[in-house]
Amino acid sequence: MAMKGAATSAIKAVASSGVTRNLHASPGSKKIVGVFYKANEYASMNPNFVGCVEGALGIRDWLESQGHQYIVTDDKEGPDSELEKHIPDLHVLISTPFHPAYVTAERIKKAKNLQLLLTAGIGSDHIDLNAAAAAGLTVAEVTGSNVVSVAEDELMRILILVRNFLPGYHQAINGEWNVAAIAHRSYDLEGKTIGTVGAGRIGKLLLQRLKPFNCNLLYHDRLKMDPELEKQIGAKFEEDLDAMLPKCDVIVINTPLTDKTRGLFDKDRIAKCKKGVLIVNNARGAIMDTQAIADACTSGHVAGYGGDVWYPQPAPKDHPWRYMPNHAMTPHISGTTIDAQLRYAAGTKDMLERYFKGEEFPPQHYIVKEGKIASQYQ
Amino acid sequence: MAMKGAATSAIKAVASSGVTRNLHASPGSKKIVGVFYKANEYASMNPNFVGCVEGALGIRDWLESQGHQYIVTDDKEGPDSELEKHIPDLHVLISTPFHPAYVTAERIKKAKNLQLLLTAGIGSDHIDLNAAAAAGLTVAEVTGSNVVSVAEDELMRILILVRNFLPGYHQAINGEWNVAAIAHRSYDLEGKTIGTVGAGRIGKLLLQRLKPFNCNLLYHDRLKMDPELEKQIGAKFEEDLDAMLPKCDVIVINTPLTDKTRGLFDKDRIAKCKKGVLIVNNARGAIMDTQAIADACTSGHVAGYGGDVWYPQPAPKDHPWRYMPNHAMTPHISGTTIDAQLRYAAGTKDMLERYFKGEEFPPQHYIVKEGKIASQYQ
Repeated sequence: MAMKGAATSAIKAVASSGVTRNLHASPGSKKIVGVFYKANEYASMNPNFVGCVEGALGIRDWLESQGHQYIVTDDKEGPDSELEKHIPDLHVLISTPFHPAYVTAERIKKAKNLQLLLTAGIGSDHIDLNAAAAAGLTVAEVTGSNVVSVAEDELMRILILVRNFLPGYHQAINGEWNVAAIAHRSYDLEGKTIGTVGAGRIGKLLLQRLKPFNCNLLYHDRLKMDPELEKQIGAKFEEDLDAMLPKCDVIVINTPLTDKTRGLFDKDRIAKCKKGVLIVNNARGAIMDTQAIADACTSGHVAGYGGDVWYPQPAPKDHPWRYMPNHAMTPHISGTTIDAQLRYAAGTKDMLERYFKGEEFPPQHYIVKEGKIASQYQ
Repeated sequence: MAMKGAATSAIKAVASSGVTRNLHASPGSKKIVGVFYKANEYASMNPNFVGCVEGALGIRDWLESQGHQYIVTDDKEGPDSELEKHIPDLHVLISTPFHPAYVTAERIKKAKNLQLLLTAGIGSDHIDLNAAAAAGLTVAEVTGSNVVSVAEDELMRILILVRNFLPGYHQAINGEWNVAAIAHRSYDLEGKTIGTVGAGRIGKLLLQRLKPFNCNLLYHDRLKMDPELEKQIGAKFEEDLDAMLPKCDVIVINTPLTDKTRGLFDKDRIAKCKKGVLIVNNARGAIMDTQAIADACTSGHVAGYGGDVWYPQPAPKDHPWRYMPNHAMTPHISGTTIDAQLRYAAGTKDMLERYFKGEEFPPQHYIVKEGKIASQYQ
């Protein structure tokens, strides 16, 4: 797809500030480690593909020209991994939700020089935030960098499930033609009830995109929206999650993974949903009880489940979500479109620049600051 | 999916007027033939599945209680088909675009009693309209019955192609995990240029649903929209098709199949599109040169092609669109969701009722009336 236009401004943001004055908070050369997914033969297929190991967020020349050391790897698990080797002396660790470097309390203890943990993207649940806070580390993400990307993907997966697209696609590639096998469970989205669990930035963007579909829109969140915004978005607040669930034809998960949301959709809560419900989850896999979802898809209580998040990631070959009926699963991709990569690469560079200069980050980017964890992760 | 609510009003419309006075234009028992796709084991899986042979639009009891004969079949091709047997003495032929009964000039000549050709759905290109007009037949469709269904499906296919969903889905079901293989050609829809070829009812509904995605929206049509509507929809008129095409990242086909649009996208016109263009066509397969599309997908000039229409239908096992790279094809399903079936069944019943009473149809439903072909088919 030849869509360079939208990328141009973000590219400029990545490239524009090539030389900065050296105003480091703690001066001297820093050791920065980035953990990204490896692209291999795909690395050279798109000049804007900065989110992979080979692309390295497009900041290698800039970092090295300032005397910093920049190590990039996809090898992140276990005591012999490349990441583990650098834990004792790295200053900054950058990772993404798509190929997360799990930062445990143990790793934090070993990382004597560590000051800053950056997520290139959104979501810092791969980090033990309590341990990071206790150790006085700063954790930050590029809030907003891929919210549009994820919201678009959610609407796509809603439509794929509601319309029963995938059985039709299988017929097309398998030489078959059986309209009835698709149509008997294919619906319009119009007129259906969609509820989002969480209406933060992504949830709101999804609701805005759903508005012209003439659905009945519901949202559950810690906070009720400002009445003006609520009216504009056209969604109704549901204070009680368990009261909202039985009303929904489609449930979309838009809440971070925290101690409160881990395993939120277990067997009992799934049973509270309408029989035949569709669930879309691009938030985090561990918000679901893996086996309970697979069982509910098999029984038909859940008529379809779509998403790009799993636990752990990469998902093992035998993960039950790969094989359950009526799913629309992919690897973790919704927030790593080319457009998103350019935005989160630019946001990461901006934070590094501020870190070197001893400047504050944009306040919405902080997840852990001065021992305190941001409210959405509490 | 347990979504009965939206269907209720259409069901009522189907069921409400069970008894009418016999005010036939030409009195007496009529022979009505319906050609639909067969559902077999799927027929009993959904009580609202009225669009198949077994469901027979839910009008059998009503027709038979009035003394009419109602024959329903999916066997429509060739001289020994069930349809062919009834051609000489049928009065009304109902068909759908999903499993079209091709009504040739030859069949019209043989059908001495034929008065009315109804499309349960939208699209009457399976009928030789000139021959129908010359023979004094009435041709009508249920305009509007599935426009929302088709527009929703178009937006789904746009997202599937722009986001590069299907390679990710294949990885999920095949036990793989390679984010880079997906991400290097996955984009946001936001900021891209989408052009619709045709902005009738479906095209307008698509544009309205695209509005919150913050795209650059273009439309080519015979007519420029009313300025107020154009402003509300937020799309720019392009009088010259060939001037619009090179601007588009995504092209969507929303024009009927006519002598003017048959083969409209041949090798030369495809060459005018931007390299890497994505094309979505839920209109009619024959608007494309089949082999030219397959070749352009293979060369990469077209980066993705999605749709549910083929020529002929059912698509043969060796249709090249089944096997070309980067497609998002299904059998012809977008206009036959359960919701759409209930609407077009109700609309078909309403027209039969009016026909029996000698009343006019709603004017927008006529495709051929008193020897004249509706403007969109000219």
